Amino acid sequence: MDAATESRLISSITRPTLLLDEARTRHNIARMVQKARRNNIRLRAHFKTHQSAQVGGWCHELGIEAITVSSVKMAEYFATHGWSDITIAFPVNWREIDVLNRLASEIDLGLLVEAVETVNFLAETLKHPVNVWLDVDAGYRRTGIEWDDVDTAKAVVEAIQRSPEVFTLKGMLTHAGNSYEARSPEELQAVYDLTVTRFTSLRDALGIPLELSIGDTPCSSVVEDLSAVDEIRPGNFVYYDVMQVIIGSCGWNDIAVALACPVVAKYPQRNEIVIHGGGVHLSKDTFVDRQGRKIFGMIALPEGDGWGEVLEGSYVKSLSQEHGVIAADQETFDRIQVGSLVMVLPVHSCMTADLMKTMTTLTNDTVRMMV
Amino acid sequence: MDAATESRLISSITRPTLLLDEARTRHNIARMVQKARRNNIRLRAHFKTHQSAQVGGWCHELGIEAITVSSVKMAEYFATHGWSDITIAFPVNWREIDVLNRLASEIDLGLLVEAVETVNFLAETLKHPVNVWLDVDAGYRRTGIEWDDVDTAKAVVEAIQRSPEVFTLKGMLTHAGNSYEARSPEELQAVYDLTVTRFTSLRDALGIPLELSIGDTPCSSVVEDLSAVDEIRPGNFVYYDVMQVIIGSCGWNDIAVALACPVVAKYPQRNEIVIHGGGVHLSKDTFVDRQGRKIFGMIALPEGDGWGEVLEGSYVKSLSQEHGVIAADQETFDRIQVGSLVMVLPVHSCMTADLMKTMTTLTNDTVRMMV
Repeated sequence: MDAATESRLISSITRPTLLLDEARTRHNIARMVQKARRNNIRLRAHFKTHQSAQVGGWCHELGIEAITVSSVKMAEYFATHGWSDITIAFPVNWREIDVLNRLASEIDLGLLVEAVETVNFLAETLKHPVNVWLDVDAGYRRTGIEWDDVDTAKAVVEAIQRSPEVFTLKGMLTHAGNSYEARSPEELQAVYDLTVTRFTSLRDALGIPLELSIGDTPCSSVVEDLSAVDEIRPGNFVYYDVMQVIIGSCGWNDIAVALACPVVAKYPQRNEIVIHGGGVHLSKDTFVDRQGRKIFGMIALPEGDGWGEVLEGSYVKSLSQEHGVIAADQETFDRIQVGSLVMVLPVHSCMTADLMKTMTTLTNDTVRMMV
Repeated sequence: MDAATESRLISSITRPTLLLDEARTRHNIARMVQKARRNNIRLRAHFKTHQSAQVGGWCHELGIEAITVSSVKMAEYFATHGWSDITIAFPVNWREIDVLNRLASEIDLGLLVEAVETVNFLAETLKHPVNVWLDVDAGYRRTGIEWDDVDTAKAVVEAIQRSPEVFTLKGMLTHAGNSYEARSPEELQAVYDLTVTRFTSLRDALGIPLELSIGDTPCSSVVEDLSAVDEIRPGNFVYYDVMQVIIGSCGWNDIAVALACPVVAKYPQRNEIVIHGGGVHLSKDTFVDRQGRKIFGMIALPEGDGWGEVLEGSYVKSLSQEHGVIAADQETFDRIQVGSLVMVLPVHSCMTADLMKTMTTLTNDTVRMMV
């Protein structure tokens, strides 16, 4: 793109800048709200992706009432911004008990437990009631009680039941992070079905009524019939990203964020383009594509006040702290000039948003995040 | 470590906190200053690692006068904090010409050029003189004129010489990033020797006096005789990190930063420990060790107001946004309790510091970075 044809917004960009397509974001939010309604289940959206009171406001306008966060700090931030039903989907950090107590006095606070010692710690130290969820490992092997470890689950439930003045046992919660290994709707359906089967097996063994809460954008996006669970907690769906396209959760035109990067050098002998846009902007999250190439981002060109179609023959092949290197096909290489901008679609939008802290909408408004 | 035995500083930590050992940092700085003096060369330290006016102040106290940065924004920050000799070791971004002009009017500004079109652009738009360096690709293949592409180098030099009122051609500069593939002093010496040979070959072909400037902490740390070059630009050496230990640039006890992370869960069936400390704190930089394991960080335990010896039998095996998972040997697994802290030595301290933005010294002072 010739600088002379750049829109006023695009021409004002001099440094790596995270652009946010508000219309796409709102569309993504509305679609997930509709899906939860069709299934008659709760959408407790995970706000770790955007970490923004403003984007949270759009979620609220579109019908979201309950949220998930991944840290106590994030719970404080959103409580300050008016959210009153928050689950911290992270094992309880004992060292933050003072803040947890304050939050428990102010909002409907949900906590994850998976060990008797943590339940006992909370029973001794909490001064206000909280909702608790059993953190269940349904196969991802990150945190939680293993789904077939009925003895531990029973022990944790009994510990919870010993302090009914503090704990309301809401249900079982899992993050089916293994859905990120899937590459088709059929594989995602299989991950979801297996998660539900394991959940149900554990609930049957415990013999008490428990809600079922699942996370993960891929399953929430692709599985049509979610009625076996009571709650979904996707987060990434507000922006999506390249990884989600690869998994099959969304299409290229659902991606709502792109990092505008100045082009600073071209290397005709190897068809590579260097941009200002590195690991401190995009994060170093990657995936390996079917040809065995390690991909740090895909690219598009500026179009109007946003970006055009993804250029599938080119990709970001490496990132250092501030540099990005694009391997381009001949046509794309010839179209991109030093001094222009390239739009990088991030592999993992949660990490990119976290790094950038502010975003610019295509109507040139600034959207801020928690700092 | 039992909470009861924690020092006051350690016991005050409730969230992921980047600890900075000021004594080690000063020692690392002083050692590199001494090495440059012994070789009678300039130490133009790269400040992208710490991005902190305070740590910059320690560098100045210890004798550093000239610096390198990796973005125009960083140049502005350090110029504001009194630095008057700054090289921006990144290809010129045309879109930031207004800021570059302002900086050129205020300080001794060094810029990298590697293409005639950028030299011509600067000749037309710069209103104040700058120092320029030929960005040379001595084998790393990221940016720069290829070391054996004499025609391009000559064309760039001629373009520079056409505008002597704007440009002072200082020399040739390279980042021997391939030193990060080395795993022994001999391999680092070979990378350095090859870089110098290629540099000298190009300088001879150009037939004009040019200073030689090399970057990279590994070569600067390990090569004793640096007298073939005029300037070194290491950055990481102020803190070092796990990667530098693996390369052989430093020892474990030279690492000056560690991320203090609350322990939130333990899994005896797989000897894994989950901490609050993830990709948003440490970055997802990794390396693969000799056993083929992907390492996201190494660990130590709190000791006094800092951390003890690295526990080589354990390591951070995965990171998600907020979670870190440690694979521990039996002894370490048994020593670490939920509610205590683990100290994570980062794989890449530049990225971790960039993410954390503030650090806490072992005497409980806060060190801030550019935001």
